[in-house]
Amino acid sequence: MSKFWNSKTRLIKPYVPGEQPKDRKYIKLNTNESPYSPSPKVIEAIKSAANEDLRLYPDPVCENLRRCIAAYFGLSQEEVFVGNGSDEILAFSFAAFFEPSETILFPDVTYSFYPVYAELFGLTFKEVVLDDAFSVPVEKFLVKNGGIVIANPNAPTGKFLPIEEIKKIIVHNNKLGKVVIVDEAYIDFGGESAAGLVKEYPNLLVVQTLSKSRALAGLRVGFALGASDLIAGLYRIQSSINSYTLDRLALAGAIAAFSDESHFQQIRRKVIQTRERVVRELEADGFFIIPSQANFIFISYPRIQAQEMFRILREKGVLVRYFNKPRIENFLRVSIGSDEEMDAFLSAVKRMIC
Amino acid sequence: MSKFWNSKTRLIKPYVPGEQPKDRKYIKLNTNESPYSPSPKVIEAIKSAANEDLRLYPDPVCENLRRCIAAYFGLSQEEVFVGNGSDEILAFSFAAFFEPSETILFPDVTYSFYPVYAELFGLTFKEVVLDDAFSVPVEKFLVKNGGIVIANPNAPTGKFLPIEEIKKIIVHNNKLGKVVIVDEAYIDFGGESAAGLVKEYPNLLVVQTLSKSRALAGLRVGFALGASDLIAGLYRIQSSINSYTLDRLALAGAIAAFSDESHFQQIRRKVIQTRERVVRELEADGFFIIPSQANFIFISYPRIQAQEMFRILREKGVLVRYFNKPRIENFLRVSIGSDEEMDAFLSAVKRMIC
Repeated sequence: MSKFWNSKTRLIKPYVPGEQPKDRKYIKLNTNESPYSPSPKVIEAIKSAANEDLRLYPDPVCENLRRCIAAYFGLSQEEVFVGNGSDEILAFSFAAFFEPSETILFPDVTYSFYPVYAELFGLTFKEVVLDDAFSVPVEKFLVKNGGIVIANPNAPTGKFLPIEEIKKIIVHNNKLGKVVIVDEAYIDFGGESAAGLVKEYPNLLVVQTLSKSRALAGLRVGFALGASDLIAGLYRIQSSINSYTLDRLALAGAIAAFSDESHFQQIRRKVIQTRERVVRELEADGFFIIPSQANFIFISYPRIQAQEMFRILREKGVLVRYFNKPRIENFLRVSIGSDEEMDAFLSAVKRMIC
Repeated sequence: MSKFWNSKTRLIKPYVPGEQPKDRKYIKLNTNESPYSPSPKVIEAIKSAANEDLRLYPDPVCENLRRCIAAYFGLSQEEVFVGNGSDEILAFSFAAFFEPSETILFPDVTYSFYPVYAELFGLTFKEVVLDDAFSVPVEKFLVKNGGIVIANPNAPTGKFLPIEEIKKIIVHNNKLGKVVIVDEAYIDFGGESAAGLVKEYPNLLVVQTLSKSRALAGLRVGFALGASDLIAGLYRIQSSINSYTLDRLALAGAIAAFSDESHFQQIRRKVIQTRERVVRELEADGFFIIPSQANFIFISYPRIQAQEMFRILREKGVLVRYFNKPRIENFLRVSIGSDEEMDAFLSAVKRMIC
């Protein structure tokens, strides 16, 4: 605590990302990174953009990248926002669309950054309790609210809410004139995107990232799809903080990522296949696993406390994520790595439970 | 205006950066970019960082880069913050240190992003009127305040305030327990940095950028120097918005930039030399020029209105910056380009005034 911090800075509880340990080499299944390399075209595009033009500012409105994402989703450039990772875009969305005097809604078990954004921007929020199977109780969202945020698939559970259910929430809030943010960071691992609803519902903002399914966590690129009004609102907030959030290299790399569809399809399918195999093996070992459409699984074991499993696996050189929070304190979130990494994980698990 | 924007989003007047025209090729003297290439070591480091590790998140606390900047300034890593350009760092600083119930001070003629940050974070500000020579009237800052922001050299004037004067403001505010932000985006073109005062004054935050003197506007890297308390406050805000604001390529490039001191010295000296020559020639032509320690000059001509000069120069293919604002509406800000670019500018000027 410092006397120079204002009251807000003292109050907020910043988000803590998964650890990036430097003490030893781990099998790193704790931050949902891709086990596969990004497209070679991305690497090539970045190398080619590493030139003397770095002396010049990037395009502040990122026209080329937005046009490319728009084409990919059948939208117009004005319906696409790009930012420094989907986290930043979510922050800007909370700042742009939610009114402090109203109450926004999100699930009680979800991405733990949402309450952090809400605190920072002075927003009131209500956490809607998920049912016992960690499913979203849609009817509880069909009430008066100042905006809704839904991660789909949800984090850290990996559970997917069918698009028809999401649509009920969007339709309800459209009548209220309130925004629904669908955070689709993990959508490419088996779920169905709400992107197709953007043209129909002016209150829908879909947020995605290149960090997971496009293997570019190190490049910091996310994007949002929504009616041009919503996108313009995001630009108003961004342009009050930082005119240029994407550097020339990230822009070049991101454009190239969208040009290599076959690489994208290949690596996301591999993750899905590995996930399904790991789920089968863990279930055979007696684990409880929430059905996942993400690049991670959320698992529990009847005989050993999750925190203890976290410790044992860490000792064995396998890093997973443990959240010491009500309702999920007996679960571990395990990112889906390569087949080799998951074999090592499964073997560590077998040694742990035998 | 959209019904989905909250009251803040409707209220704010976002910052508008200098235009990046796509219609034709200009001699671009409007955004204070460096006319020189960044260090070849930077290009090399980026190419080498363009590899499969891009699938992994960057270091959220940017240890290597902060250690490197700390060593450069004789500080510790805990006294260095790094961010996505100095604009983002300034935004975080406004959010971290200034209390909405108090009044912050900055000059009436200064970087036009400051009132934008203040509006966004609901801060009250008072613009202290610069004297007729656009000098900072230091005594007017030695009053009760909630924090002070001083660009030094100032923008868009280029005028430098001697470090002893800056120190008076810091000392005064240290007694009040209030932060002073010294925005040194242009410090490497002739001014003396307040970085040397950081160890002595816990209320001083010095903000610099790699965009200008290190020719890396396209890489988006800025940094702040201050007591570890202040740096920790900035991290609290950043970590409530975006855990990773610098991608792996920007980190690698920025580290390399600090490893090539001779390139840095060479290109900043060239800018200074060209500036001095251009000033002499313009003065000989009858221009009034505010003494500049920046990589731009702020000029006025008795016989032609600045807005008209802006238009004529643009027609002739030379892009400069015009601010349609009280007190400075008869000035043009002209970035210092290469000698060839400035010869073209001077020749366009001569044709304009003859």
